[in-house]
Amino acid sequence: MVNELKNENVKATLRFIGVVKKVEEDEAKICLFPQFCPGLKGIEAFSHTIILYWAHLRDSKKERNTLLVFPRRHEVNVETGVFACRSPSRPNPISLCVVELVKVEECILTVRGLDACEGTPIIDVKPYLPRADSISYARVPEWTSRGPPT
Amino acid sequence: MVNELKNENVKATLRFIGVVKKVEEDEAKICLFPQFCPGLKGIEAFSHTIILYWAHLRDSKKERNTLLVFPRRHEVNVETGVFACRSPSRPNPISLCVVELVKVEECILTVRGLDACEGTPIIDVKPYLPRADSISYARVPEWTSRGPPT
Repeated sequence: MVNELKNENVKATLRFIGVVKKVEEDEAKICLFPQFCPGLKGIEAFSHTIILYWAHLRDSKKERNTLLVFPRRHEVNVETGVFACRSPSRPNPISLCVVELVKVEECILTVRGLDACEGTPIIDVKPYLPRADSISYARVPEWTSRGPPT
Repeated sequence: MVNELKNENVKATLRFIGVVKKVEEDEAKICLFPQFCPGLKGIEAFSHTIILYWAHLRDSKKERNTLLVFPRRHEVNVETGVFACRSPSRPNPISLCVVELVKVEECILTVRGLDACEGTPIIDVKPYLPRADSISYARVPEWTSRGPPT
């Protein structure tokens, strides 16, 4: 299996499963395309979910070849690798937000805390599992404690 | 921007940035392809990272059209939507693990807690930020408290 991947240029195809609509203050609506709605069965039992979305405005050759940045909106002037910050400019412009699930209606999730603009394509929704996902004591460099959380 | 996405079949292309090598007990080595190494600058300041990887063994039409599953390895017999569990069978077979960063050497990350087999393609590495990512009090259904964390 390792041998299959010797070619560094292997690629895969993403399907968009929905889109961000109506962003108001801290709340946003995520509308899944109808064919994906059955996949939400049982999600209302979770208070939080992880949203993976495609930072489509950064899906350009230039942004996808960016490997070093000055983290946006942070008072840091140290050049940082894109894998050591949450910059949307990165080889795969996938952004990740942990959001509070406010309401579930058919194909529409109302969520709180999504840092995405209207029109952003959604690529995955996962339940948030504190057992696996919550590491309150994780160590971070000092610069991440100022400015916005991501 | 919303109008641009009316077509539900819009797609995007992922580039693999590395591969999982040498999985031993709880530790694994993630080898980034050389051209992506500069993106790791500064990552050693974080104790934990989020690894996004491509569950390539599930990258088939059948698995990508799966929307309902019986969560694997869990004693639950309730049919659950793939967006309400962490099944690798889903429209985009992206898996997510929060891992402990044990060591960083050039292009190689040694991590603890990665639930992926050797040869799995890596698509992103993000720093774990407790401010944004740790929700210790998140509510989950009872079935998630038994069996493996994801």
